[in-house]
Amino acid sequence: MDIAATAEKIANGDRRALARAITLAESGRADHRAQATALLETLKPLERQAVRIGLSGTPGVGKSTFIEAFGCLLTGKGLKVAVLAVDPSSARSGGSILGDKTRMERLSRDLNAFIRPSPSQSQLGGVARRTREAIELCEAAGFDVVLIETVGVGQSETMVAEMSDLFVLLLAPAGGDELQGVKRGIMEMADLILVNKADGDLKPAATRTCADYMGALKLLRKRPQDPEGFPKAMMVSALAEEGLEAAWDEMRGLVNWRRETGFFDKARADQSRFWFGEEVRQGLLRRLESAEAKAAVEALAEKVAAGEISASRAAEMVLKNLDGV
Amino acid sequence: MDIAATAEKIANGDRRALARAITLAESGRADHRAQATALLETLKPLERQAVRIGLSGTPGVGKSTFIEAFGCLLTGKGLKVAVLAVDPSSARSGGSILGDKTRMERLSRDLNAFIRPSPSQSQLGGVARRTREAIELCEAAGFDVVLIETVGVGQSETMVAEMSDLFVLLLAPAGGDELQGVKRGIMEMADLILVNKADGDLKPAATRTCADYMGALKLLRKRPQDPEGFPKAMMVSALAEEGLEAAWDEMRGLVNWRRETGFFDKARADQSRFWFGEEVRQGLLRRLESAEAKAAVEALAEKVAAGEISASRAAEMVLKNLDGV
Repeated sequence: MDIAATAEKIANGDRRALARAITLAESGRADHRAQATALLETLKPLERQAVRIGLSGTPGVGKSTFIEAFGCLLTGKGLKVAVLAVDPSSARSGGSILGDKTRMERLSRDLNAFIRPSPSQSQLGGVARRTREAIELCEAAGFDVVLIETVGVGQSETMVAEMSDLFVLLLAPAGGDELQGVKRGIMEMADLILVNKADGDLKPAATRTCADYMGALKLLRKRPQDPEGFPKAMMVSALAEEGLEAAWDEMRGLVNWRRETGFFDKARADQSRFWFGEEVRQGLLRRLESAEAKAAVEALAEKVAAGEISASRAAEMVLKNLDGV
Repeated sequence: MDIAATAEKIANGDRRALARAITLAESGRADHRAQATALLETLKPLERQAVRIGLSGTPGVGKSTFIEAFGCLLTGKGLKVAVLAVDPSSARSGGSILGDKTRMERLSRDLNAFIRPSPSQSQLGGVARRTREAIELCEAAGFDVVLIETVGVGQSETMVAEMSDLFVLLLAPAGGDELQGVKRGIMEMADLILVNKADGDLKPAATRTCADYMGALKLLRKRPQDPEGFPKAMMVSALAEEGLEAAWDEMRGLVNWRRETGFFDKARADQSRFWFGEEVRQGLLRRLESAEAKAAVEALAEKVAAGEISASRAAEMVLKNLDGV
């Protein structure tokens, strides 16, 4: 592959070149990933920057409908919008969210939009690196907004929040006696909570839910990176396309404030440091995937399970043999 | 320290020797921890086994009151009860739960009970190993029941569940419109949900909450290690000492069923394998704590933060230099 030529195509907004580059970043082959890294290094001097918006919501909150309507609102303003998906469940199921572009028919036909389904089968560590590189490739390709979508479970939200400039939580109106709520940790990551489906019969429930979350957000300690009034809860209706403009105004206002106060750059620097640490840790742990390491672990695992040797002692033995691997 | 003599004291139920051994396991010094491991290996042939009960509940559910009343119920039956605490927050705050034994005055004076506060300051990885060793030391000392207490946040519950024979979730009666619920992941770990404070004014709310959870538990997929009717939700009042006998009957019934069906031993073997893997991973990651590794990371971190080098590339450089460390 001709790195310089491909980089130029990406810089000129060639979507097929972009898609191919992301495929390289997602590849299981080390040489492919090295090409993706080389591409990014070639594109770096452009210093293009998008607004990275993390978007989380459990299935059923209307995420696809929201992304479709919100994305079209942005492209309607002349902005270029990329949508990436992170699906922690794909590791097990092999499936992917956003695989079905037909759920975003209008946006997927839009020439100013780029929709990328989540790669299937991979560990969260690998997904993080690929997603970060995909984001950077989209930025280099001149996208103004990168939406990073994830489902509201487990660690994927923390991961997405750690690679976003702002984090949006999409919720559906809740009944009064529902068991499941929003995990406290997730609420604390959110810059903006959008209660979707504020239309028709669900409007009263949406109003109540929104008020509940506004109250709950007030209970959280104010973070330095939040201007007055943030984090914030608002109602939207993706279906009726209501409240989306207001939501975008809030996002823009927040990003502008953070840019002016330096929190935007500071957050990106912090995120880079965080991912550097993660890459080191994950890279080190990959040493356990060598045939020798696996054999050493397997040879002891049954003895540990049978109680013949303690887990600590067995681990010591494995680690001693890992020296120089 | 005379390992053989200390081991004999522990085997004879000497509480001071037990406490000293746990202190060794908790120590930051490698030689202390090696002594604790040697002690455990000396005590191993006794093959004593307690019922390990993991107990989780957020602050305010009445955990101390429950442990006091439940522990006294068990010692009243002639059983020896050890209470260990795992506090994930102590890493940051330096504080510890169960530090205040006065909250369990009756149990702490009971000669058949042993209460051990959580060690302060440590990472979850270290806490896991220490707690597992403390459990084994208590078993070797002849305790019949080991209660492992944790607060309902973050990963500590998963950790405690991975070292328990059964996992109990303590809840308080909830108002109808409360935001926070129980995280789905935790509900899926629970064998028994106890709705505490089912007394006085709160009884109706407790009844409703219990019914809600019974309904919710029915929605979960049945696990092979569950006999008919499990996982189960019940009401208790630690204050009025009601429902505790019934809760113990359920726990005993569950443990007996699992013993008879082989799931008890299988779970312990699985847990040993799991902790072996964790020990290997944590041990490997400890290499990053060497002065050389730290210096290598620090030297690159600011370049990464400034965007001069990518996190992946910088990580590669650090890992290359870690070879042979």
